[in-house]
Amino acid sequence: MQNFDYYNPTKIVFGQNRLNELDNLIPQNAKVLVLFGGGSVKRFGTLAKIKSSLGKREVLEFGGIEPNPQFETLLKAVELVRAEKVDFLLAVGGGSVMDGTKFVALAAKQASEHEKILFNGFEPVPVSEALPLGCIVTLPATGSEMNTFGVITYNKQKYPFTTPLVFPKFSVLDPDLTLTLPKEQIANGIADAFIHVIEQYLTQVENAKVQDRFSEGLLKTLIEDGPVTYADNDNIEARKNFMWSATSALNGLIGAGVMQDWSTHMIGHEMTAMFGIAHGRTLAIILPSLLRERKAHKKDKLLQFAERVWDISEGSDEEKINGAIDKTETFFNSLGIVTKLSHYNIGDEEINTLVANMKKMGLTHLSETGDLTLDIVHKILMSAK
Amino acid sequence: MQNFDYYNPTKIVFGQNRLNELDNLIPQNAKVLVLFGGGSVKRFGTLAKIKSSLGKREVLEFGGIEPNPQFETLLKAVELVRAEKVDFLLAVGGGSVMDGTKFVALAAKQASEHEKILFNGFEPVPVSEALPLGCIVTLPATGSEMNTFGVITYNKQKYPFTTPLVFPKFSVLDPDLTLTLPKEQIANGIADAFIHVIEQYLTQVENAKVQDRFSEGLLKTLIEDGPVTYADNDNIEARKNFMWSATSALNGLIGAGVMQDWSTHMIGHEMTAMFGIAHGRTLAIILPSLLRERKAHKKDKLLQFAERVWDISEGSDEEKINGAIDKTETFFNSLGIVTKLSHYNIGDEEINTLVANMKKMGLTHLSETGDLTLDIVHKILMSAK
Repeated sequence: MQNFDYYNPTKIVFGQNRLNELDNLIPQNAKVLVLFGGGSVKRFGTLAKIKSSLGKREVLEFGGIEPNPQFETLLKAVELVRAEKVDFLLAVGGGSVMDGTKFVALAAKQASEHEKILFNGFEPVPVSEALPLGCIVTLPATGSEMNTFGVITYNKQKYPFTTPLVFPKFSVLDPDLTLTLPKEQIANGIADAFIHVIEQYLTQVENAKVQDRFSEGLLKTLIEDGPVTYADNDNIEARKNFMWSATSALNGLIGAGVMQDWSTHMIGHEMTAMFGIAHGRTLAIILPSLLRERKAHKKDKLLQFAERVWDISEGSDEEKINGAIDKTETFFNSLGIVTKLSHYNIGDEEINTLVANMKKMGLTHLSETGDLTLDIVHKILMSAK
Repeated sequence: MQNFDYYNPTKIVFGQNRLNELDNLIPQNAKVLVLFGGGSVKRFGTLAKIKSSLGKREVLEFGGIEPNPQFETLLKAVELVRAEKVDFLLAVGGGSVMDGTKFVALAAKQASEHEKILFNGFEPVPVSEALPLGCIVTLPATGSEMNTFGVITYNKQKYPFTTPLVFPKFSVLDPDLTLTLPKEQIANGIADAFIHVIEQYLTQVENAKVQDRFSEGLLKTLIEDGPVTYADNDNIEARKNFMWSATSALNGLIGAGVMQDWSTHMIGHEMTAMFGIAHGRTLAIILPSLLRERKAHKKDKLLQFAERVWDISEGSDEEKINGAIDKTETFFNSLGIVTKLSHYNIGDEEINTLVANMKKMGLTHLSETGDLTLDIVHKILMSAK
């Protein structure tokens, strides 16, 4: 196990009928901006409940944050925050709304040069303050509700950013608020959470036994209760387990003290930016192909993954590993996710352009060991056709 | 899964050679009181390293916090804090020193009636402020370094207390600082951590899959790397896994959203108060006997424990459960812990007195379901003779 720091001060408010507690979670004198995406937050009554819980506080609204939130859209929210002297941001939505709100929290405190929030990769954003924010999760997937990360689209590219300044003060995880989601968004969320775990787990073996077993526990829970949630909207107990898995997948805990890969995400971000494919789906296309290509590199952990997560005890090491990768792909397929690029009309030419774009972005040495070059990215994509 | 709140703002600083980072963790202008137990903190050079890292800050010392820390001892530290206007407490030790420091942090802000910190059971202490504190863990066991709990001995009884005010600001977990521990203290720590998990896990099945699997992961890690740490002082990797398991066992995570038992601890506290037996050892005596007595009550989870933690796949349910309890007892024995009361010269008379004392303390309905009465406590102790 490597040395690590672990710090996560977000308060989680988990379970049914918790929206009425917002009154205790947000300062009494706060002027609150509620940020959301499409109209479902209004249509299904969530916004009305939030306003009722916030009592006499002045509450403003900013809707229309799109999936893969755009820099320009968010700057409009920043203007509103400044003009109205808002002092608390409340994100109501999934990863895009939460990530966008984190950006707004930072940008509202910068007089200019909002771009500088974006161009730091995984180094902390070089700013010193942010507005406080809270989250109400309506789409479990990204873990943004309990971490320091965001991803914003700027000039048709996706840029990640991170700083402890954007830890949400609290996040409400009420499974009832996710019941109106379309099935395919549940599927995307399951795939996204699953692959968040994989990026931190399926690396080199480092004898970090607690982290490994926590990761395996999350994967097994997603394998068991993901499909139940996908198939049966009424199974609240399965949905709770899926939600808590998704949050736990990217709150820093399983990644503390271990190497992290994130190749699948780096390639996936480019696919979303170029072709508009939903984030979770891009990951599910890339991962099986990436694991087949990196079988030798990840051999020991793949074997552990096969035995502990997929319970494969028979066969040679090679057979176990192949079985685990096949089962992973079948798992995504069982959620209605097609794991072939041809389904999205992506062929040789598009793959070449994607790899060229990654080169332009400087994404030339991916993975936990920095040896996943663009030649290998090309191979991975070709075998995912 | 039940509704839950989860909040834990303690920063963990994990790994070798981290003491030099204290300078960044404690305010520059703080007047620091270092609290510790016996002389080993001085003898092995830890105190000198701490002082060196704290640079120009004024540093005072308070040594002599005993195992099962006494109210009277701690009041002396409170006097020193007040007289010297100390504004940061640094606990260097195991659970007793950390718990004692938490008490001092609360009591230093109360002009009088320090007893009122103790008599609230598991309800939050009714006070509104505490001095900030940090921990340097030299004995992994209690999890006090990342939680809100303490246990203090007052008038020969052990009193637990809790409040978010005593979350450590940070805790340094450096395995090298534990290398001088006597073997039996390592054993006590392993047993203590193991049973912390059990108290939150081995209750009624509630379909909290993440929490269950995290608990099982901690138990398996303790089973694997506890004995290695006990037997081989040079195995730092095993020691790290043991340390992170012990902290993770009682930081609120695995207990969020599930029933909790704590019967073994309630009985154990009384045994320590009456007979001076080390905390971890009392728990290891009680647990096997308690599980045998409560086999029917805990049947479903005991079966899960047998299959997932001890990998018992053969035999009837009854046989699996018996096997798991036997293996648990053998595990404690393998750490040099005798699990029989007779070893401590405790017989019928002492057992009767112990049960009578628990009655006086109002501890008449234990367990997650409140149906573990003193008659059953008596039976459990009699079968542990």
